[in-house]
Parts: sequence; C-alpha cells; structure tokens
Amino acid sequence: MIAAVIPEFGRMKVREVDDPQLSGSTDVIVKVAAAGVCRTDLETMSGGLVPAYGQPVFPYVAGHETTGWVEAVGSEVSVVAPGDPVLLHPLITCGLCDGCRAGRDMYCSNSRFPGVDATTWGGFAEYMLTGERAVVPLPADADLEELAGYSDAGLTAYHAVKRLIPYLNPNGTVAVIGVGGVGHFAVQLLREMTSCTVIALDVDSTRAQLGEQLGAHASFHGPIETMLASVLELTNGGVDAVMDCASGGSQSVTPLDFVRKGGTVSLVGGGASLNVDTLSAVVKEITIVTNLVGTYTELQELIGTQRSGIRSLHTTFPLSDTTEALHSLTTGSVVGRAVLVP
Amino acid sequence: MIAAVIPEFGRMKVREVDDPQLSGSTDVIVKVAAAGVCRTDLETMSGGLVPAYGQPVFPYVAGHETTGWVEAVGSEVSVVAPGDPVLLHPLITCGLCDGCRAGRDMYCSNSRFPGVDATTWGGFAEYMLTGERAVVPLPADADLEELAGYSDAGLTAYHAVKRLIPYLNPNGTVAVIGVGGVGHFAVQLLREMTSCTVIALDVDSTRAQLGEQLGAHASFHGPIETMLASVLELTNGGVDAVMDCASGGSQSVTPLDFVRKGGTVSLVGGGASLNVDTLSAVVKEITIVTNLVGTYTELQELIGTQRSGIRSLHTTFPLSDTTEALHSLTTGSVVGRAVLVP
Amino acid sequence: MIAAVIPEFGRMKVREVDDPQLSGSTDVIVKVAAAGVCRTDLETMSGGLVPAYGQPVFPYVAGHETTGWVEAVGSEVSVVAPGDPVLLHPLITCGLCDGCRAGRDMYCSNSRFPGVDATTWGGFAEYMLTGERAVVPLPADADLEELAGYSDAGLTAYHAVKRLIPYLNPNGTVAVIGVGGVGHFAVQLLREMTSCTVIALDVDSTRAQLGEQLGAHASFHGPIETMLASVLELTNGGVDAVMDCASGGSQSVTPLDFVRKGGTVSLVGGGASLNVDTLSAVVKEITIVTNLVGTYTELQELIGTQRSGIRSLHTTFPLSDTTEALHSLTTGSVVGRAVLVP
Amino acid sequence: MIAAVIPEFGRMKVREVDDPQLSGSTDVIVKVAAAGVCRTDLETMSGGLVPAYGQPVFPYVAGHETTGWVEAVGSEVSVVAPGDPVLLHPLITCGLCDGCRAGRDMYCSNSRFPGVDATTWGGFAEYMLTGERAVVPLPADADLEELAGYSDAGLTAYHAVKRLIPYLNPNGTVAVIGVGGVGHFAVQLLREMTSCTVIALDVDSTRAQLGEQLGAHASFHGPIETMLASVLELTNGGVDAVMDCASGGSQSVTPLDFVRKGGTVSLVGGGASLNVDTLSAVVKEITIVTNLVGTYTELQELIGTQRSGIRSLHTTFPLSDTTEALHSLTTGSVVGRAVLVP
Repeated sequence: MIAAVIPEFGRMKVREVDDPQLSGSTDVIVKVAAAGVCRTDLETMSGGLVPAYGQPVFPYVAGHETTGWVEAVGSEVSVVAPGDPVLLHPLITCGLCDGCRAGRDMYCSNSRFPGVDATTWGGFAEYMLTGERAVVPLPADADLEELAGYSDAGLTAYHAVKRLIPYLNPNGTVAVIGVGGVGHFAVQLLREMTSCTVIALDVDSTRAQLGEQLGAHASFHGPIETMLASVLELTNGGVDAVMDCASGGSQSVTPLDFVRKGGTVSLVGGGASLNVDTLSAVVKEITIVTNLVGTYTELQELIGTQRSGIRSLHTTFPLSDTTEALHSLTTGSVVGRAVLVP
Repeated sequence: MIAAVIPEFGRMKVREVDDPQLSGSTDVIVKVAAAGVCRTDLETMSGGLVPAYGQPVFPYVAGHETTGWVEAVGSEVSVVAPGDPVLLHPLITCGLCDGCRAGRDMYCSNSRFPGVDATTWGGFAEYMLTGERAVVPLPADADLEELAGYSDAGLTAYHAVKRLIPYLNPNGTVAVIGVGGVGHFAVQLLREMTSCTVIALDVDSTRAQLGEQLGAHASFHGPIETMLASVLELTNGGVDAVMDCASGGSQSVTPLDFVRKGGTVSLVGGGASLNVDTLSAVVKEITIVTNLVGTYTELQELIGTQRSGIRSLHTTFPLSDTTEALHSLTTGSVVGRAVLVP
Repeated sequence: MIAAVIPEFGRMKVREVDDPQLSGSTDVIVKVAAAGVCRTDLETMSGGLVPAYGQPVFPYVAGHETTGWVEAVGSEVSVVAPGDPVLLHPLITCGLCDGCRAGRDMYCSNSRFPGVDATTWGGFAEYMLTGERAVVPLPADADLEELAGYSDAGLTAYHAVKRLIPYLNPNGTVAVIGVGGVGHFAVQLLREMTSCTVIALDVDSTRAQLGEQLGAHASFHGPIETMLASVLELTNGGVDAVMDCASGGSQSVTPLDFVRKGGTVSLVGGGASLNVDTLSAVVKEITIVTNLVGTYTELQELIGTQRSGIRSLHTTFPLSDTTEALHSLTTGSVVGRAVLVP
Repeated sequence: MIAAVIPEFGRMKVREVDDPQLSGSTDVIVKVAAAGVCRTDLETMSGGLVPAYGQPVFPYVAGHETTGWVEAVGSEVSVVAPGDPVLLHPLITCGLCDGCRAGRDMYCSNSRFPGVDATTWGGFAEYMLTGERAVVPLPADADLEELAGYSDAGLTAYHAVKRLIPYLNPNGTVAVIGVGGVGHFAVQLLREMTSCTVIALDVDSTRAQLGEQLGAHASFHGPIETMLASVLELTNGGVDAVMDCASGGSQSVTPLDFVRKGGTVSLVGGGASLNVDTLSAVVKEITIVTNLVGTYTELQELIGTQRSGIRSLHTTFPLSDTTEALHSLTTGSVVGRAVLVP
C-alpha cells in the first residue's frame, strides 16, 4: 500500500510499504478514508516524542486521527463487520487494566498509540491496523472527511468541556485562548453544552473572528497582554473559566490572570511551562484542570453532537501531498484541520 | 486595654491602647481568651501584605485566630449574648454580596480582615471588636486555648480536605507536605474524614514523626528529593493526591512530581511560585486545587470534629511575651500553634 | 391600599386594607407592579396549607410572585433605594441560621413566606412589605409583568434544571411532564443550559405543542400510558431523565417508568403520592431528586437568562379581576402564568 | 463434581453433575473455596426471579458469591493463571457495550449472572465457569471463606456508601436500617470511609447491638415506629441520610421519615414498594438514591479495606449441608453470611 512514512527523524516521504495483516483475534484492519494532520505529527517526525514513547522502529507511519471502512476483522470481533464506516479512537487499549476497567481509556497501562508511539503504524496510509476497542461505528451516511478531526482534536475539546461543566455556573463566562484545531471545537461545544457566555481569543484576527462565526459572544485578538486587558474590562474583573487551547501565556501573562475569584483554568494540551504565583492563585482560590484526549465513550457522544451542527473545519489534501499539508500546518495557513485522503 | 501593637513596620510592642467601642447594630465585642500566632502575623508586621491590603493605620493590632467571651453586643445581635464563649471566623462579612449569599464567606466583596487588613484591629489584645456574622458560639466547657488554632490553621486544613474529598477514591493515598500549624490538622482530618492512606512528609524528622503520631500510616523526612524518591517507591509510582501545606518544592521538585495519573495537587496556602511543566501535567491529567481559608459553616463543622479527638497542638505564651512567641515561631521551635493569652 | 384578601377560608375578595409600614431596620416596602397567580394561591385560599404553616390571621393577602419598585426602606438597607425596580425572592430569610449561612435560602429556619404562610401578607396588593434579603435589583428597562413569573415558577424550574445537570450526560434525553407554569420554563431552560434532547409531554395537545414552540425536539400528548409508550419507542427504552412538573403519573404509570438504566427522576413540585416499586427502581438504579423552589443567588442567575430569550408566558388581569384570574387558572384556560396588575 | 442443584422450582439438592468445560478464549474455571448464601438464592430456588431473567434450564446451580483458585484458563486469558486465589465479581460482562466501556459493569447489556439468571451455573459447586473480566486476583494469604461475602453483600454496601459520600457532609449523621448481610458491611464502611455519626437500627436487639460492636455510635431496635421516634429525638429532627438495607418501612413509616431537610435516602437492595408522599418529600427536598450491586473496580477497592479491619461476619457450612444453610438463613439464625465450603 501507499503510506506517508518517516524513514528517519526529520523527514516524511510517501512511498510503497507492506499492507498490514491481522494477527490477534480482536484485530481490525481499516481502509483509510481520511486522516487528520496535527501538530503532534510534526513532533513525531522530528523525534520530539522519543522521551515519552521511546525509539521509533523505522520506517514509521504517522497519523492518529483516522476514519475509514472496516476491511477485515479478527476471529472474535463482534462490534463491527467488513464494510462498516468507522471513526478510530486514537488509542488501542487492553480492556483489562485499572484504567480500562474504570472507563478511562487514556489511562490504559498497556495501550498502543498508532502514529504516535513510534512503533505502531498510524493513519497516513491506505490501510491501518487497529483493535476492536478502538473502532466507533458510524452511520452509513457519515461524512468521513469531516469526522477525521473528531478523533483527536474534537475529542480533546469535548473531554475538556465535559470535565469543565461541574466547575461552571449556568450564567458564567468562559474564555477560549486559541481558535485552532482544538479551540474551534471548544468554542462550539461550550455554546452547545453550556449556557455560559463565550469569549474567543487568538493572536490572529482571522481566527478570532472565526470564533465569533462559530458562536462566541465576543472575540479579541492581538498580543496576550492586550487581550487580557480587554477581557478584564468586558467582564468587570475576569472570566469564570479559561480554556487554554494554545499553551497561551507569555513571560508576563498566564491563563490564571484571566479568571476571577473561584475561577477555573482548563489546560487543553500542554506545551510551554506555566509559572504559577501560588499566593495570588490561593487568594483567588483558582483550580487548574488539565486534560488528556478523551475516552471511547466520549468519542461516541461527540459524534452525536453533529446533529446540532458542530462543524469540524478542514482542508483536504491527497495523501500524495502530505508534505504540502505538513507545510501548510507549519505556516499556519490551514483553516481548521488539514485532512489527508488516500 | 493591653494589646500587642505594630507602631510601624518591623516592630511589635505590648502597650496600653483604647478599648474598642460598639458602633453598628450587629457589632460584637469579645473579651479575648486566646489568640493564635501565625506566619501571616510576621508578614503583617513586616509590611509584606501591603500589596494585598493597602497601607496600615498605625498603631495596628495583629492577630486573626481568636477565642473569647462575648463582652457586649449591638442592638440587633441575636446569635450570641454577653458571657457566651465564642470562636471567631477570621473575616467580618457583609452577608449581602454575591459571595456571602452563596455561603462563601471568604469571597465577601465588603469584608474586613481583623489583624491582617492593616486597618481593623485583631486579637493580640484584651478585647476585640468583630461582627455578629463572625462569631461561632461554643459549648460552655470548650477549651478556648485549644480552639484558638481552629480559627485559621484548622479551618484552612478542614476546608482543603473537604474540597479534596470529591477528587479522592476511598482506597487512595494522600501525602501531606509539611506537618506544621496547618499540616498537623490536615493529617488528622484526612484520617478522620476519608479512608485514604496518609503519608506525612517534613524536612524535619521530629515533625515527620509527629505526623505518624497524629495518625499518618507512614512518614518521611529530609530533602524533598529524598522524600519524593521514598514516596514513589512506597506507592509504586505516586500518590493519588498531595496536600502542600509548606509551599513545598524546590527548583527541581514540585508537588506535581508526587502524584500518579489522574492525581490531584492541593495547595494549602501560597508562597513560592510553582513552575508547572504543562506537558507532563497533561500527560498525567493532573488537577491543581488551591484553597483560601474556609467558611463560617465549615468552622462550625470543624468544631464538631473535637468529639473525634482532633487535636490543636499549641504552646501558650502570656500576651506580655508576644515578642518571644514571635521569635519561637521564626526559629521553628514551637510545636503546633503558639497561642497568646491576655 | 387595595388588595385581594382572604377574609376566611374559601373566599378571596378585592377590598381596601391598611398600607404596610416599615418597622425593622432591613424592611423594604415595594409598590407592586405585577403578581403571578399560582396553584399554591388556590391552596392558600382553601386552607389546604394549614398543616404546613398553621392557622391564618384573617384577613390575609395571598400572592408570592411579585415585581415592583422600592417605595421605602429601613434604616440599614444598602442593597436597594426607593425607585429601584425589583423582583422578590418568595421567602424573607434571616441570614444567620445554618441554611442561610450555607446559601440555601429555602432552608432558612426563621423564614417568613409572604402570601403563603397565612400570616405574612403577599403581593396581591398595591404595596407589599418584605426584607432586604428578598429583593433582587433589576435593570431599569426590565419588563415587570414578564418577570413576575420568574419569582417562583421560573425559579423553581431553574433550580431543578441546575440540580439536574450533574446527573445528565451531554448527549442525554430529558422528558418534561407538564408544560404549564413551571414546565414551560423547564423546557426552555433545558434547551438553554444543556445539550440534551428534550421531549415535552402534556395531556393537553395545545400545551404539548407549546413545548415544541419553546424548543423541545419532540412532544407527545394524551393519556400518560400513551405518552409512555411513545417515549419508550422514540428513545429505544427510556429517557435519561424525566422532570415531572405536573405531579404526573397515574395508578399504573409513574415517572420512573420513563427512564432507562441509571436514569434520574426530578420531582418539581409535589402533589399526589408516588408509589415506587423498589425492586425495579434498584434494578434500573434510579435516582429521585426532589426540588424546593430556589435560592436568591439562583434568582439573580435566572434573570440573566433573559438575554438568551427565555420567555415567561403570561396573561395579564387587573388586580380588581383577581377572582376571574383564579377562575381561569382553575379551568386551565390560562397560557403560562396569570399575572395581576394593581 | 458435587453441586447443590435446583432440579425444579422449590427444591435444592446436593448431587453429582458434569464438570464445567472451557469453551471461549477468555473463559476461566475456578475451583470453589467458599460460596456465600444470600436471600437471592431463595428467590432463585422459588422461581421468583423468572420475571427478571426468564425460564431456568434445569438442573440449575445457584450461588453468586464465590471465592476459589483458578483451575484452568482460556487461550487469551492474561489476568490470572492456574493456582491464583480469586474473588469473583457476580456478573460475567462483555467489555464492549456502553455500560462496560463506561466502567459500569452492572449495566452490561450482554451480561450473564451465574447462579441468578437461571441458565449460567453458580458457585454452590466444586467448580465454576466464569470469565476473565469477573476474576479479581487476591493476595496469596487471603482468607477465602471470609471474602466470599465481599462478592455481593460487601460490594453492594461499598458501592452504596461510595455513591452516598457526595451527598454527605463530614459532620453528618447516617442511620442504617437493618444490620444483616449487607447492613453489617454498611455500618463498618460508613465508619471507615466517612466522618459521619452512624446509627444502627434493627428490629432485632442482637443485630442492633452488633451494629454498635461494628462501630455504630448508637443503635436502636424494636418496631420501626419506635426506632423512628428515638432517631428523631436523638438527632433533633432527623438524620442527614438513611441507608435502608432491609427494605425497611411499614404502612405508616418510610425511610423518608428519618431524614431532615436536604436529606438523602439510599435504598440498598429492593423489595417492598415504597409510598412517597411527594409534597413532604419536596418540602424536605429529599433525594432518593437506589443502588445496584457494584463494579469490578469497586470490588478491587473493597478488598483493600481489609487492611482497616473490615469484617465479613459469616458461619461456615459444608456444601453437603446446603439445605441446612438455607434453612438457617430463612429462620434468621445466621450471624452475617452463611458460607458453603465444598
């Protein structure tokens, strides 16, 4: 089959590789319909994830946001059958460890992470091997290019909003920092899942405006110091919660500065280090919630939100143009998700 | 009356000052029985709290952990009568702002903070003026020296443990960093209010051992790097929650390093800044909860725990020896709370 | 002033009575703009509430959903001033008991309930005496006839929806039984405050249809047995939660029959007794949540939802036609709330 | 092998039956060490569970509280190996349905219930067939007779207490109605997992006293009307929560009568129907929580409580005396759990 492989750190190349084969009784092979491209893929390519996942086995296929049709299934698979359209949860989990038994798939102590763990091949290919516990069946008429971005960006936003709800009051105000792949979902899901006022923030004016188009009640753009001043003025002292989808902040401003007394800071994805002035955090009695992708069940739930018109903005590239897609992501010229189609 | 006053920043002196007088209809004057001494008093004396509360009106009386007997009440006071033994909530609150209406006394937007706000006189005196909303009636046989430390140290620990409970699993493990004024309450209250395993940590071996005497299942002392290694080994990878009662941490170790996947960091009191590596925080999906003293209702609840034998360790000094009490606190030679008695 | 008084059980009569007078320092006299009429007023008139509140002091003025303008204030009132438009929380609370200190106004152990407790006069009058803790300031341009129904019907629905949220999943389905005074708020607030699918149920087809006009995704009407069958079919076995705003149910069908495994039954207002088959409740692991009006803070929050277009449907009657308004309520010919205007 | 079989409704007989055989890849055969006897077994024997589970396939082996040693495992089992001591979760679950994916084993839509569903053989036998997802590994020195009762009675109590915790305040009071198989666990677990005051109630004075021996702060016995009066007097108006482990109540008294404003009623096991006066339930704003056994994860957690000395009281009978064990259960002469040993 054709796949975009990493033959060594720093490069990605579209070429012929062996087709995946079934081996375990719960294996599932998926014919890829679409594969989202994420900043994590750039990290994988550069070798930046080695500290987390170990040395890659080259050549290695990236891609962890995948939709497709079931091509073949192991002997004990009951959830799907060949031909079924599916969306893949990013992890392949064991189902038996403490994390899995509690329904927290991301905590699986035996998981494989296709396209990310540097050993298990991902979705930048014509076919992909995964497990029964990772496949979410879709309706027959599902738009598989639209849905690819749900697999990680959408799921991460959904998980974070769902976890934020217990900290929110119905009449609260929430600021979203960064209206990119994850943030554009966060804005829509906050509007759909809560009655809070939503403020979209982005250094880039086009993306800030996109936030309003997707439902934010207000938006600001520019340097974070400027956005902070605007938010404090508009809200008379701070929002009730901030979702940082951009590892926002600078030397002088952190997401904690945006919230009022009793406020909550939701970190959606990690990156730069965050310097917390504990005295002022305690005086405001701030809670900081971090978020790690989401569960299989949450991915099923997220699909249901399509009914309400939640959009997964994306730009499609043929798999053969993977290099161009990665370049567009690097330069920030993609709206929503770049999606590869074999 | 006699009081320990701050005549200017950097000094505290026991001398004669005017008695407080009733003015508002809900004012209450308390004859002080005992007043706890806290590190915050050192900050007040040094002027370190000016950024938070503004310039003091000298001479100023410190002290925010007070028990006593009601001496006189305003015309509309109904909760207490002269002669009643009382414990004082540290804030005088309005009862009408959003914070008060929601039962969150510490969020009162019109509050005064006797002994701390540099204007409202505190409890290092023979008499103290407070408000009806701050007085918690006590049983006739209450030990007023024992209870002084409940007012802030005990209340802060109780509030933090209560807020931590929703994050804990019944079979979880909690580490307490710092077995001092607040921490020695935290260890006892975790044992009383949860079924978690409790580990006491302190740089000082005597205080670490005190943790075990107060109920901790295990204790470690020494440099934080050493304690971290011991905790990770004992717990096979980390505790479920850590309560930092010592602004613990160093350049290389933070409270976040102590917890496992899905863990919670409870900051009880602020101090040094905390540097959060957001990537590893997200991968472990850590929640950080900060805590600001506690509510009037929680103070009432805390008093009820005396029945279970929760102890407020303290060393008594006459009010005339305030300087010595402050010195003992600075040198770390006090066990539990230093308490002044007029 | 003119008021609709109950001179003895079973009658209500519009006639001249003495104006209310300020006595306590936190008293507030309100010039009534509008007063909602509720089934509770029929109970008050008939004497049906005597078991709950004791013997009335005749003549007695009913009415517990009131808006108006502040006419006069006691010496220590700070929250409002004469001329301010206000919405009244139904209870006059003490601010000092355990319930009040915890922010749970309805649990006040010293409360008076104007228009209901058979001693404290209510809002079917030109003027009404209340307390500072009961007045919620309104914006200058507030529609006081529209808002009268918020005071009890709206507040009760808001409190119940807010309490239901922790039991709901974002992709859940909620059925509302009864689209009357409370239920028409519940349908709108569920749509606004959650992302759940909402089904409106009413024995009456017009009210069921009103449910859809107010945002329900589906509606059914007719005998409860028929509605149950329709809901079970539509939801493939039951909803995740049911809000019973009509003391719904019959000998053979209860609200519990509508929910699936792990479902929640929210009782909004009481009435008929509910026969729970505990074996089938346990097998479905149902939770039953009952709801008692709401807090002052919730009433403030509810007013904020007007921005989102939450409507308080009502039909206006002059105070002199109180008898006709009560009659219309009895016969079920009022859409939304009947509102009296002096 | 020898087993206690139900050859037809109404009888149970110890006799020779075929040994169970492995068929699926995740099957596990357990050599039974001990099997708890529960009232549910009487229901199974009488045919009373047919409405819930369908017609039995005779001869049928009862028993759903089982410990033992792994005898043989299917080809893909990884959690245990032959010789391992294990405690069995009562259900065999699929791991793939919505319930299982969310960690709620009892909601499995494809579950089998050995010893209860009238088709899958249970633990009153020398060997028992179960699935990998049902086996909880135990420490090598585990007391398998002691632990049999954990499987259902203990798990049900643990699940119910854990679910009750969010409704409790640390200084609350909880009454437990019925100190039998489930209730004697509930008393101990409330003491261990909360700081609430615990009151044990039982019609029988010996069992009420057992409640105190197991940690209850107070106990009452006698007719429920008498116990209600005693509880209301002791608590000055009602407890904060009641756990009904006895389908308590009578025509005139229900568990709701025991609780104060804002109180919670926890139904642990079902039985008689419960007549709820909705008006008084709403005025007290009561919540009713029902409970269905517990999850695999909770069973693991429960085993951890042994460290704290939680006892599973039991009386041992040889498997050959099953009839006598059932008789003792019927007459109420067993203390704690009757346990059969092959």
